[in-house]
Amino acid sequence: MDLTPARGTRDLLPAAVAVRDHVLARITEVYQRYGYQRIETPALENIDRLQGGQGGENQKLIYQVLRRGLEPTVAADTSLSELVDLGLRFDLTVPLSRFYGANRATLPQPFRSFQFGPVWRAERPAKGRYRQFYQCDIDLLGEPSVLAEVELIEATSAALASAGLAGTTVRLSDRRFLSALASHAGVPAQGWDRLFITLDKLDKIGWDGVRAELADRVGLDEATIARVADTITSLQGVDAAKIADELSSALPDVGDDVLSDLATTAEGLAALPDLTWEFDPTLVRGMGYYTGQIFEITHPASGGSVAGGGRYDQLIGRFLGTDVPACGFSIGFERIVDLLGAAPARDAVAVLYEADTPVSAVLTTARELRAEGRTVSPVRRSGKFGAQLGRLEEWGFTSFVHLRADQEGAVEERRLGEKRT
Amino acid sequence: MDLTPARGTRDLLPAAVAVRDHVLARITEVYQRYGYQRIETPALENIDRLQGGQGGENQKLIYQVLRRGLEPTVAADTSLSELVDLGLRFDLTVPLSRFYGANRATLPQPFRSFQFGPVWRAERPAKGRYRQFYQCDIDLLGEPSVLAEVELIEATSAALASAGLAGTTVRLSDRRFLSALASHAGVPAQGWDRLFITLDKLDKIGWDGVRAELADRVGLDEATIARVADTITSLQGVDAAKIADELSSALPDVGDDVLSDLATTAEGLAALPDLTWEFDPTLVRGMGYYTGQIFEITHPASGGSVAGGGRYDQLIGRFLGTDVPACGFSIGFERIVDLLGAAPARDAVAVLYEADTPVSAVLTTARELRAEGRTVSPVRRSGKFGAQLGRLEEWGFTSFVHLRADQEGAVEERRLGEKRT
Repeated sequence: MDLTPARGTRDLLPAAVAVRDHVLARITEVYQRYGYQRIETPALENIDRLQGGQGGENQKLIYQVLRRGLEPTVAADTSLSELVDLGLRFDLTVPLSRFYGANRATLPQPFRSFQFGPVWRAERPAKGRYRQFYQCDIDLLGEPSVLAEVELIEATSAALASAGLAGTTVRLSDRRFLSALASHAGVPAQGWDRLFITLDKLDKIGWDGVRAELADRVGLDEATIARVADTITSLQGVDAAKIADELSSALPDVGDDVLSDLATTAEGLAALPDLTWEFDPTLVRGMGYYTGQIFEITHPASGGSVAGGGRYDQLIGRFLGTDVPACGFSIGFERIVDLLGAAPARDAVAVLYEADTPVSAVLTTARELRAEGRTVSPVRRSGKFGAQLGRLEEWGFTSFVHLRADQEGAVEERRLGEKRT
Repeated sequence: MDLTPARGTRDLLPAAVAVRDHVLARITEVYQRYGYQRIETPALENIDRLQGGQGGENQKLIYQVLRRGLEPTVAADTSLSELVDLGLRFDLTVPLSRFYGANRATLPQPFRSFQFGPVWRAERPAKGRYRQFYQCDIDLLGEPSVLAEVELIEATSAALASAGLAGTTVRLSDRRFLSALASHAGVPAQGWDRLFITLDKLDKIGWDGVRAELADRVGLDEATIARVADTITSLQGVDAAKIADELSSALPDVGDDVLSDLATTAEGLAALPDLTWEFDPTLVRGMGYYTGQIFEITHPASGGSVAGGGRYDQLIGRFLGTDVPACGFSIGFERIVDLLGAAPARDAVAVLYEADTPVSAVLTTARELRAEGRTVSPVRRSGKFGAQLGRLEEWGFTSFVHLRADQEGAVEERRLGEKRT
């Protein structure tokens, strides 16, 4: 029988789970200190909600679940969609919007939500990409001011640092700035989305690639492209304290709310001595639902970002009928885990016993060591002694005691690895 | 738009998640001390593995997942099974068997596995029954002696006690005892399974119900039924230290290995002063794959058991081709959580601020309190002051500070609820 996991999925072995649990525990601890409370939604959602239009490209990747109680043979001319009523969630944002709509009356206002859980996407398998992976999101729902943005950035930077990821940089922009830029440069409104999608590729294809794509695929003329490029270039690397002024002079039409929000966020972030950040006029963020400030966190060891988010004031309204101010930050959990590599070593004692050692003697010894707070597991002696000690060390044991059948008195605990140093 | 979760599933709100996290943390801590290491398998498995015959009735409840890339209209005479390639796991034991087969070369021997995760069953919705629920299993794979049984019982009793469930009782039996009983009473081998299924209902339908069902549905005559009932009754409430002797005299054909295993388990459990246990000749446990000792833990506040398990030496062999001695214990996580009710109270401070309080002042105050290790969340002032304090208390805040726009100097922290006592 084929024993490999389903295509595109993977088993997580103890060492891998230990890193994940360690990272999650550090993140959870920090988010809890900021008052974020964990919630959970079911993995399965009604298929029409998942296909409701908020998921962009991800909607094409939904795992669809067959209705129960169908006839074993499908009638002619049945459409696939008639056979399906549920799907596996592809992110945690669509379920959160539904959750908030369903439970708002009993939730704190504002509501600080923390989610950690698997999502599923039927993507073409590739190295390091899995069809089941974990997302780790915090969202602040019901807070209209950029207090939300600063708090999310502060909490997430602290969470990553606590998990062991030092040297991160926060990049910040605003969707409303991008709109003002497009308008100022003379890009027609129907071309804005494609303009932003192209700008988002700047770090991959460079200015030459972006210029070519804006001409060929967005249909912009040379002068318009030049205005876009010049404005962006003039705002790169701007002193954080002067963003509002610089933006205002580069784009006289940009709204006062955008400028004051940026100034407030800049002031809030400036108060954090351990945080490095910059205004990044090239930042776009993929999802179409962002309405205000957008941000991501990068790390020198990672090509892409390690966390990303922004304000999405109109998404929950599509579920609820009334708009709710909302801002979220999602940690790329799988990427963080890959960057960090290993969990702190555990201290674990093996109680080696012979085939004829009485079971009660083995259990008593294990119990006595556990009573001292140790991690203890009985292991039966087998094969050559030195080889078995080597295996114990490989498996993460740090010491052992050897119980003989005729054991009398105290046993001696010995560190593993000592013999061979 | 309908915002309720998919039929038979539920949202978990912060208070519910807090209980679950608390229980899981206590259980995890204990199992780790016994050397059990958490692993994880994907939620989706190839459908043929799930339907391979090890899941009993649960196989009928599998959520089946549509293949990707199918035509939108199904061709005539297509069977449903052609449209499906994956399913959601209905337990953690089938995936564990596959996992062990796939990863055995790199796993410790014996392997102590700890699993916690959701499983899915398309059951008819009923009060307290959900279509997605969590299982919490430990398994000791590769240990042939009852050292495994005693360790699993010891660890699980300790885990439940640590989670706050005091006053539990362990019930123990052995599938091989049940076979000897059936043989001794003269039940033909093809009737054993139905005999055991009927005996399993004793606590629900009583001896009269069991006798009627054994006559009507298993086809046993009165004398055979009397022998079964008499043997079981004679072994109920037997002194734990004398089980092997009593069994041996009641059923002279019972194997020596069964007797010595029971004696060893009895001796091991006798060494645990905090554990209450009994031999229960009526214990069956539902799954067909058990091969040796079986056990469950009951609690006065719960109708059914709160944990159950046993030895299953032939299950992994069906995946691997070679038998591997195996023993497992599964905690009824959802039931425990229901029994325990509430998590320990958190300590949380609300920073109440006015609409015109500068954002930086709010954030600075929150930060200073967090630096003292507190859980702190800013909340905007709204509505009547007393009513808002009432809501804060409802939402789990334990104290607050009130920041005014013209705040100067230190703010005073006040406990919530004090005014109204």
